[in-house]
Amino acid sequence: MDASPLPADLPLTELTRHRRLREQGSLRRADLEAILDAGFVCHLGVVVDGRPLVVPTVYGRDERWLYVHGSVASRSLAGGAPVCVTVTHVDGLVLARSVFEHGVNYRSAVVHGDARPVTDPEEKLEGLRRLTEHAAPGQWAYARRPNRKELAATTLLAVSLEHASVKIRTGAPDDGDGPDAALGLWAGVLPLTSVWGAPVTDPALPRDTPVPAHLARRGGTRQG
Amino acid sequence: MDASPLPADLPLTELTRHRRLREQGSLRRADLEAILDAGFVCHLGVVVDGRPLVVPTVYGRDERWLYVHGSVASRSLAGGAPVCVTVTHVDGLVLARSVFEHGVNYRSAVVHGDARPVTDPEEKLEGLRRLTEHAAPGQWAYARRPNRKELAATTLLAVSLEHASVKIRTGAPDDGDGPDAALGLWAGVLPLTSVWGAPVTDPALPRDTPVPAHLARRGGTRQG
Repeated sequence: MDASPLPADLPLTELTRHRRLREQGSLRRADLEAILDAGFVCHLGVVVDGRPLVVPTVYGRDERWLYVHGSVASRSLAGGAPVCVTVTHVDGLVLARSVFEHGVNYRSAVVHGDARPVTDPEEKLEGLRRLTEHAAPGQWAYARRPNRKELAATTLLAVSLEHASVKIRTGAPDDGDGPDAALGLWAGVLPLTSVWGAPVTDPALPRDTPVPAHLARRGGTRQG
Repeated sequence: MDASPLPADLPLTELTRHRRLREQGSLRRADLEAILDAGFVCHLGVVVDGRPLVVPTVYGRDERWLYVHGSVASRSLAGGAPVCVTVTHVDGLVLARSVFEHGVNYRSAVVHGDARPVTDPEEKLEGLRRLTEHAAPGQWAYARRPNRKELAATTLLAVSLEHASVKIRTGAPDDGDGPDAALGLWAGVLPLTSVWGAPVTDPALPRDTPVPAHLARRGGTRQG
C-alpha cells in the first residue's frame, strides 16, 4: 500500500482530460478534496459482464485513498477491478434565454482507479472510521464500533485518489451578452441547497431520550 | 422505436435482481417513475475501453423511454452502447446503536439498457422538451426553443425504461430490538432535504427584471 503524498495538481491523462466545456475543468487537487469532503454518497461504477453498473454507496477518504463501502458490488469487485467513483453536488438550475444554454451549476469529482479490497484488519478499521466520520462526524466515538465478525462481513474498497477529474460550474447563464439578450427574457439561477433536518429519535426509544450534541447541532445546517 | 406500454411490474432479471438487502427492493413501476420524476440529475455509466465511466447529466422521460443529455459521453455512445442510468435521492442518515448498522435512507432507480442516440428531429425535439420541462417546468414555453443548428449540436440518448431496479430505505435503524438496544445510546435518523432557493437574476439584466411566476413560485419548495 503506497502512502506517498500525491501532487497538488491532478495528472492530465486520456481518462481525465476534459473533452467538453473545458472552462469547467479544474486540475487542483484542493478542489477534488473539497468536493469529496462536502458529500458522503458517491456513485460507484463497475463493469459487470461488459455492461456498466452504477450504484450509490457511502465513502470516506484519507490523503491517498478513497474508501468506498463496497457490499453493493462485492461480487464484481472481489479480485480488484476497474472502478469509477463519482461525487456530484447540484447547486442550482441555470435558466438561460435559450433552452440550448440551460444547464446546471454543479461540482463533480470523478475518480478513476482499480478497486483494492481492503483485507488488512487495521486498515479496514481505519478506513471504516474515516467513512463513518465522513458521513456522521462524532459517531465513531459515540456508537458501538465494529467487532471482528462485523468487520469480516463488511466489504471495504480502496481506490487511489491519484487520477481524478474535477468539474465545476458556477454563476449566471452564458447568453447574457449574445443575440438572445435582446429577447428581453428573465434569466438567472434557481439555487438548490441540501439542509439537515432536526434529528428524529428512533420510535423504539423513550421519546425524551436526549439527542447527543454532535448530532443536535447539525440540524438546520447546510450539507454539500 | 417501440411505443408499447410497459408492464406495471418490473421484470426480474439477472441484472435487476437484488442480491443484498432484499427488503429494500421494489418491483413496482410506479416506484421507479416516482423516483425518476423527483429528480433531474442522473449518473450515467458507460464502458470506455473496458473501464467504467460515471458522469452526471440531466434527463427526462416519457412512459417508455428515459431521455438523457448525452454530450458528456457522446464519443463513447455514438453507435449505441450499454449504459446504466442511476437516480438517487438521499433522504437522511440512519444512526444506529452500532456503527455496523449505520446507513442511509434513500430512494434509487437503476435503469439498464442500450443507449439509442435519438436522430429523428421530431423525437429529439420532443425528448428535449421533456428533459427541459422535467428539470425546469415552464421553461419550454418561456425560453427560446432550440433551432435546427442547436438541435443538431445536441446529443440526446434514449434508454428503454423496461429494465430497472428500485431500492428504497426509510425509517429508523434496525438495531432497536437487538442486543445493542441495551447500550442505552441515542439512535434515529438525521433527515436531509433539498430546497430550491429564491431565483437569482442574471447580473447582465436590470436588477428589477420581474421573475416569471413559474420560477418565482418554486423558490422555497422541496426538491426530490
